[in-house]
Amino acid sequence: MENEREKNVEDGTALEDVKEERKEDEELSVERISEGEVPSWRKQLTLRAFAVSFLLSVMFCFVVMKLSLTTGIIPSFNVSAGLLGFFFIQTWTKLIAQSGMLRQPFTCQENTVIQTCVIASSGVAFSGGFGSYLFGMSERIAEQSEDRKDAFDYKNPALGWMISFLFVVSFIGLFAVVPMRKIIILDFKLKYARGTETAHLINSFHTPEGAKLAKKQVRALGKFFSFSFLWGFFQWFFTAGEDCGFTSFPTFGLQAYEHKFFFDFSATYVGVGMICPHIINVSALVGGILSWGIMWPLIENRKGHWYPADLPPNSLKGLQGYKIFIGIAMILGDGSYNFVKARARTLAGLLIKLLETKAKSQIPVKQHSSPSIKSQSYDDQRRSQLFLKDQIPKWFAIGGYLATAAISTAILPYIFNHHKWYHIAVIYIFAPTLAFCNAFGCGLTGWSSASMYGKLAILTIGAWGGASHGGVMAPLVACGVIMSITAPASDLMQDFKTGYMTLASPRSIFVSQVIGTAMGCVISPCVFWMFYKAFPDIGYTTSEYPAPFATVYYTMARLGVEGFSPLPKHCLNLCYVFFAAAVLINLIRDILGKKRSWFIPLPMAMGIPFFLGSYFAIDMCVGSLILYIWQKVNKAKADAFGPVVASGLICGDGMWTLPSAILALAGVRPPICMKFISRATNSRVDKYLGS
Amino acid sequence: MENEREKNVEDGTALEDVKEERKEDEELSVERISEGEVPSWRKQLTLRAFAVSFLLSVMFCFVVMKLSLTTGIIPSFNVSAGLLGFFFIQTWTKLIAQSGMLRQPFTCQENTVIQTCVIASSGVAFSGGFGSYLFGMSERIAEQSEDRKDAFDYKNPALGWMISFLFVVSFIGLFAVVPMRKIIILDFKLKYARGTETAHLINSFHTPEGAKLAKKQVRALGKFFSFSFLWGFFQWFFTAGEDCGFTSFPTFGLQAYEHKFFFDFSATYVGVGMICPHIINVSALVGGILSWGIMWPLIENRKGHWYPADLPPNSLKGLQGYKIFIGIAMILGDGSYNFVKARARTLAGLLIKLLETKAKSQIPVKQHSSPSIKSQSYDDQRRSQLFLKDQIPKWFAIGGYLATAAISTAILPYIFNHHKWYHIAVIYIFAPTLAFCNAFGCGLTGWSSASMYGKLAILTIGAWGGASHGGVMAPLVACGVIMSITAPASDLMQDFKTGYMTLASPRSIFVSQVIGTAMGCVISPCVFWMFYKAFPDIGYTTSEYPAPFATVYYTMARLGVEGFSPLPKHCLNLCYVFFAAAVLINLIRDILGKKRSWFIPLPMAMGIPFFLGSYFAIDMCVGSLILYIWQKVNKAKADAFGPVVASGLICGDGMWTLPSAILALAGVRPPICMKFISRATNSRVDKYLGS
Repeated sequence: MENEREKNVEDGTALEDVKEERKEDEELSVERISEGEVPSWRKQLTLRAFAVSFLLSVMFCFVVMKLSLTTGIIPSFNVSAGLLGFFFIQTWTKLIAQSGMLRQPFTCQENTVIQTCVIASSGVAFSGGFGSYLFGMSERIAEQSEDRKDAFDYKNPALGWMISFLFVVSFIGLFAVVPMRKIIILDFKLKYARGTETAHLINSFHTPEGAKLAKKQVRALGKFFSFSFLWGFFQWFFTAGEDCGFTSFPTFGLQAYEHKFFFDFSATYVGVGMICPHIINVSALVGGILSWGIMWPLIENRKGHWYPADLPPNSLKGLQGYKIFIGIAMILGDGSYNFVKARARTLAGLLIKLLETKAKSQIPVKQHSSPSIKSQSYDDQRRSQLFLKDQIPKWFAIGGYLATAAISTAILPYIFNHHKWYHIAVIYIFAPTLAFCNAFGCGLTGWSSASMYGKLAILTIGAWGGASHGGVMAPLVACGVIMSITAPASDLMQDFKTGYMTLASPRSIFVSQVIGTAMGCVISPCVFWMFYKAFPDIGYTTSEYPAPFATVYYTMARLGVEGFSPLPKHCLNLCYVFFAAAVLINLIRDILGKKRSWFIPLPMAMGIPFFLGSYFAIDMCVGSLILYIWQKVNKAKADAFGPVVASGLICGDGMWTLPSAILALAGVRPPICMKFISRATNSRVDKYLGS
Repeated sequence: MENEREKNVEDGTALEDVKEERKEDEELSVERISEGEVPSWRKQLTLRAFAVSFLLSVMFCFVVMKLSLTTGIIPSFNVSAGLLGFFFIQTWTKLIAQSGMLRQPFTCQENTVIQTCVIASSGVAFSGGFGSYLFGMSERIAEQSEDRKDAFDYKNPALGWMISFLFVVSFIGLFAVVPMRKIIILDFKLKYARGTETAHLINSFHTPEGAKLAKKQVRALGKFFSFSFLWGFFQWFFTAGEDCGFTSFPTFGLQAYEHKFFFDFSATYVGVGMICPHIINVSALVGGILSWGIMWPLIENRKGHWYPADLPPNSLKGLQGYKIFIGIAMILGDGSYNFVKARARTLAGLLIKLLETKAKSQIPVKQHSSPSIKSQSYDDQRRSQLFLKDQIPKWFAIGGYLATAAISTAILPYIFNHHKWYHIAVIYIFAPTLAFCNAFGCGLTGWSSASMYGKLAILTIGAWGGASHGGVMAPLVACGVIMSITAPASDLMQDFKTGYMTLASPRSIFVSQVIGTAMGCVISPCVFWMFYKAFPDIGYTTSEYPAPFATVYYTMARLGVEGFSPLPKHCLNLCYVFFAAAVLINLIRDILGKKRSWFIPLPMAMGIPFFLGSYFAIDMCVGSLILYIWQKVNKAKADAFGPVVASGLICGDGMWTLPSAILALAGVRPPICMKFISRATNSRVDKYLGS
């Protein structure tokens, strides 16, 4: 799932470059405009900021959870988080100001703190693996794909251990990268596309013109939020059973529906399609057509030859196996290529930066500092000055890391019975390097490789431990630990960059990140728990929340442990082909260059519909189409309001899951079933109901 | 049904007044602008004009037929007929001009000819009574409300007699009013709101600015036409059975659906709602709530007391009787009030005009003619001059009338076996007076009373003939004859007014009207025949095309013949109450004046949902709401494009009935049923289908 997220950010980079240059010119004087007194780091951490952050965290947690459990495609929410944070505090301060009680005005820095906190806490909803490794440990996922019911071990979700697990693993990554803060931000001056963009956004809010635009954007967001929420509400009434309601709308006919080609009227994925670059949406559709339109029907014709005809429909030895394994091959192929590429760039970049720094340090100190500072712009000077003002002591970071690592090593084997403490210990020896690599790579390339590190951990630990040592559990736990270290590390560094550009103190950023992570460690499991209890069929392929990547992660763990033995006939060959194809397509894209390769689909996006079907891809293409037409009609407006409208659609629909879960928990069931049946079946049903 | 149409026009009048004054100022120089040579009347009647007219006639015939057979509410199509005529000929001439073959440019007059022809032919679709008296004669309508199957006579639709009938009765009205042409248009200078508006529209098309706006309007119309057509097409796939598809969407829940409260996603009625004044739409909704929300459930509680509990659901002796009779009472109350009012105004107006004319004629001739001409504006002079140039000889009109009346009197008894020739003869003695009255009244008040004359004919001929002489057939035939005389009479006079203002010759108008009527006499029965064959359940209350006014007209005929005997208990009293209420409400509206009575509903619009349910009223209110919001956002644009968008929606959906009928005739049935069932039923169905 997260791959998609990275991809997304990555693909945004090209655009960002252009935007950024333009903005860089305009905002030469950003810090002069906002030259007012920057509040001390303690004052940047206001109670109201965390109150707002908490509210937004809950909301985004629902949204991220919904996305994780339906398809695993999660777009970036920076714009909406920044915007909503601004809106709430602005309203708050205005109300307070009217009553004459306002003690502290709303600043850029406070806005950055909110943004950091919200992204940190919703980050846990993603790196906590509720749609991937964590839920992949459960009995339900295993029993769907296993043939022998007694042969697997599992750990079903429970609120207690999930919260402990998250608390134990989520903070290590933060301590790991804090010491590298100065080198990466000040000396290496890495780009951090997302962090930079967020900073521009927040800075723009705090100019008079930007505030005006922001107000309009908030209004648009509110409008589409409400629409999407109400649409979700309306849909609810018609979903009184399986295959009822708009989510089962056979838009292109019943046959296409059976092959998962239909438009399911999901405001969420139309919104996601509006945020993702067109090529991602089209790739997903192409992948869907290739797999569900061509390959699966062909393989199904070989039923009885390639695989036994009498298997249960979800068995990995049957058609489902082809879907999952070939999808994984595609995703791993793309992931590996980009991982290797990014590591190579990271290493090369690191070498260059180190050499540069070394060269600088050989210049005598007196001469060095003054010209270097002079060559800096006013903005950079002021930013560097404030960035260096509030230091986080090295002993604190190292102490924190050691303490959390020790606690984690001690506690994790208690949570997961089969888990060996030395697995954990080995991981923690490598963890700081991985965290640094990911943070550095993210700054350089614009995307986090956390999930790729996680997948590597699954395969290596799986192979190391083998079937005897904890089966699939050990690799999944290792994956969780690695992801929970690397993902927040890159997030934190992004936020440092944002803080650097908005003059927020690194200390306040760090504290906000810690508080946000802590919030996430409580909120995310609770939200997941709500889903788990409210929708009892969650995780089954027929469910509204199939959690597709839970099965994918589980299957990868089995691959690691058992090797290729569970694959059905010819499946391994097909996997090789698709792995190679994914690498090849990426290679061609890189050789042709960004401009000339615009029409070549992305293997990562193509892989997801392999096991899910094309319905979400169709939604996303509808979103793409809407944005495309909008851009044709009024480019400026579409660019300013497109992401906002999309966020409104996504968040509104996501928020509807809260009342819908509450209704489900309270035992209130929808009253009507909107059923789609063929004409022949309909006359049978009418006869039956009439008699 | 037509009542609604009149109402509509009537309510538009107040607005027209304002618009007209404004326009009158602006267009002082209309005829100077278009001072080019006006082609001779023969040249105004081009082949291309009638080719386009034929195409548009077919389209509007489908639209009018669809409206007649679903609810009977037919808005005015002048704007779209004018616009589309302009568009087609404009495109045509441009294409021809490019090939260098153009011999005659496109003129205002030609446009008027098309407009006249189209309105005349689609007028037949309405005055032919396919949704009212004509279909009311059929076995199907009678058998639904009769209790004794052997007791009624009927005449089922058949292509042959319908076409003969229409040809025999439709032209008489035209000859009847031709001689009064000069008096009404030139001497009395009656307003003819619709004719004037159409003329303004056509004149505006032939100015450079107007042509530009028209082009944009055509584009909007095309866009919404396509959308509506495709939406109809999309809906079709999901209607594989009764109560399937969007037309059975229980938008407000299943209980509300049972009481006919739902939004049925009909583009047609959303469009109708955008054209009709807000008060009509709201009145219909109020009527629906009053009847289906309050009265019918209360009466249903009296089942077994007020009416026998074991009746078939459509028996007029049961609940259906209350619905129909009370609805008729309401419509008749409103109709009678306005009829009496209009007759009083007509008489008074006629007296005044006659006195004026007399006074003028007493002034010595020399003095009279010159100042009168001098006092006229340049436009009026030129218009009068051209209007008087091409005379239609009196002998031609009188001869035509006598000939058609004789043919009609001779042939009608052959078509309708029971019909007495002296009924017809009596009607034709009064017919010219009725035709003149209606044409004059329409010019004065803005609306045609044709259907009210028709209803009066039903009641009087029914009472005269009694049950022994042809039963319900005689009054229905009489109604048809009267309507087919009076409706075209007022239409023709409207068109003369349009022709007067666009400098089209009265001769070309007359010829165009005759050709249009002839087209209508063939096209309408064929279209109706297509509906009748393609949708075998047409006319039944459960059908997609319930033809509600067919039952209403049939029931009125029975009332005329049998008196109040078939009414269930207390129904007569309720009818009195609602008749009185309708009169009272109208009286209050008139006393308060237009401005202060904006919130008082119209009884006519309230009466229709009494027997149909509120679903179309909800559609129309949605249309109202859309227009209201649009006007709030951008009034100028909403005013210019609202009617066009509405026409697009109506015509697109209407045109879809052509392919849908063809599909039905070819035996192609929709593949899917979108069914709405309760949760309990759904689980039963799932169990049944599973086993």
